[in-house]
Parts: sequence; structure tokens; C-alpha cells
Amino acid sequence: MEAYLIQNPAVQAGEELPPLTKPAVTKTQLVKFAGASGDFNPIHTVEEAGQEAGLGGVIAHGMLIMGFAGEALTTWVPRSAIRKFSVRFSAITRPGDEIQVRGELAGREETEEGTLVTIKVQAVDQKGEIKVKGTCEALLPLK
Amino acid sequence: MEAYLIQNPAVQAGEELPPLTKPAVTKTQLVKFAGASGDFNPIHTVEEAGQEAGLGGVIAHGMLIMGFAGEALTTWVPRSAIRKFSVRFSAITRPGDEIQVRGELAGREETEEGTLVTIKVQAVDQKGEIKVKGTCEALLPLK
Repeated sequence: MEAYLIQNPAVQAGEELPPLTKPAVTKTQLVKFAGASGDFNPIHTVEEAGQEAGLGGVIAHGMLIMGFAGEALTTWVPRSAIRKFSVRFSAITRPGDEIQVRGELAGREETEEGTLVTIKVQAVDQKGEIKVKGTCEALLPLK
Repeated sequence: MEAYLIQNPAVQAGEELPPLTKPAVTKTQLVKFAGASGDFNPIHTVEEAGQEAGLGGVIAHGMLIMGFAGEALTTWVPRSAIRKFSVRFSAITRPGDEIQVRGELAGREETEEGTLVTIKVQAVDQKGEIKVKGTCEALLPLK
């Protein structure tokens, strides 16, 4: 499916982008993510390790949540258009949390190479707690 | 294992940090990453889809490489210390590529809350091609 901002070239700064809602994070997903990423820190997969670290159990890899935000970006702009992606981590995600990634077109500028867009992105849970807040710069190609 | 900059509090700006070398990226790893992240774009897992997209085969998820960089960060600073992480994507990664994540302490500043460090990070392949270039800000807690 073509990226939203390609399909909707008239979206203006300040407008919201279609959110991406992920299924609730599962412990098995954290095991898969450990295997895929190679990040086997046991606080993500071993209950006792999370308890001993004072986290009250296992917690999600921050990079998984950043990945959700990255996935949402690729629904809004073509992935080859993404130049820069910056995030600030603000809260821990636990199994059971349902993450929604919300976006807003923060700016657009016509350049000789194409349309340079700035997108603000937030990953929030079912309670509205912000897990990750970020900014993306993408260059939409000329038609 | 305690983070490198906690173990070595005398590291100064301009000094290199121990690199993280990952095993060569495999196609199976991309399948695992798709399952873990929920990003099933077939250019990462289906050979024909990568060919049709003009990529010459499957390519790694950009977020996987960003994840490698994030993993390296957590060997240098405690993960709870990471405040901000920003990357610029510069090249595609393919199965077989061996990614090394290199870091440099770019700055350190003593504050009332702790030591604020800035780390420059690069993920490069076996040919030295830069895949991802980034910056991280972390606040090392007071002793």
C-alpha cells in the first residue's frame, strides 16, 4: 500500500496522520525480539531478572517500541524517503501494554529535490502514557 | 555486566568506546524480526518482492540496524540512562552483511543530576560502508 502522504499530498502541517495500533505486547514477542535482535538482556525475558532489577517483572526492549514508531513512519512516508529519526524514551513498556503510534505532520517544505516533511510521532499505551516521543525527517520524491 | 562508562568514569570526549560486532545478518533473522516487530513488509522476507522493488533481493529492516546501534549503546551506558537517540539512515543492509557498531564519547558535562554524556555512534559493514549514523544523550546517575 502506498504511503499515506504520497496518497494524500494535500495534508498540511498540523494535521494528524492515521495512527498505527499494535496488538498488546506479549512475553513471547519479547523472546522473539531478543532472538531477532541479539539483545538477550534477561530483564526482557526472565521474570526473576526483571524482579531482581526492581522492575516488577520483564519489560519490553526500548528498541521494540522505537521499532513500532518506525513501522508507523513507513505507513506515512516511503521507507526510502526517511532521512532522520530521533526519539526520546520516556516510560517503560510492559507485557499487556497496547501501544498506539500517533503522528502529526509538523512541517512541509518544497525543495528542488522534493517535499521535505517533518513528522512528530508518539507511542502511547492504553492509559495514554507516552513511551516514546520522536521526530522524523523525510524527503518525498518529486512526481 | 556494568556499562562501560560506569566502569570507566575517566573516559574523555574524543575517546573511542568498545565496538559491538554482530554476526552476519541472515535471512532467517529478518523473518524473526518481522515476527517480533510485526513489520511484515515482504521486501524483508520474500526474495521476489525485493527483486520486484528493484532492490536485488531482500533487505534488512532499517529498525534492525538501528536496534544494533541501540544494543551497543546499552553496553556503554545503563539503558535507563538513555534519554535521546537519533539516527540518520544512509545505506541498505543485506543478508550476509556483518555490522559493527562503533562509538565515540563526543562530550561530557557534569550537572547536578549526574554526568550528561553525548555519544556518536556508527553502524558500518565489513566494507566500511556506513549504514546508520547517530547520536545518543545519556545521563549517568550520581554515585
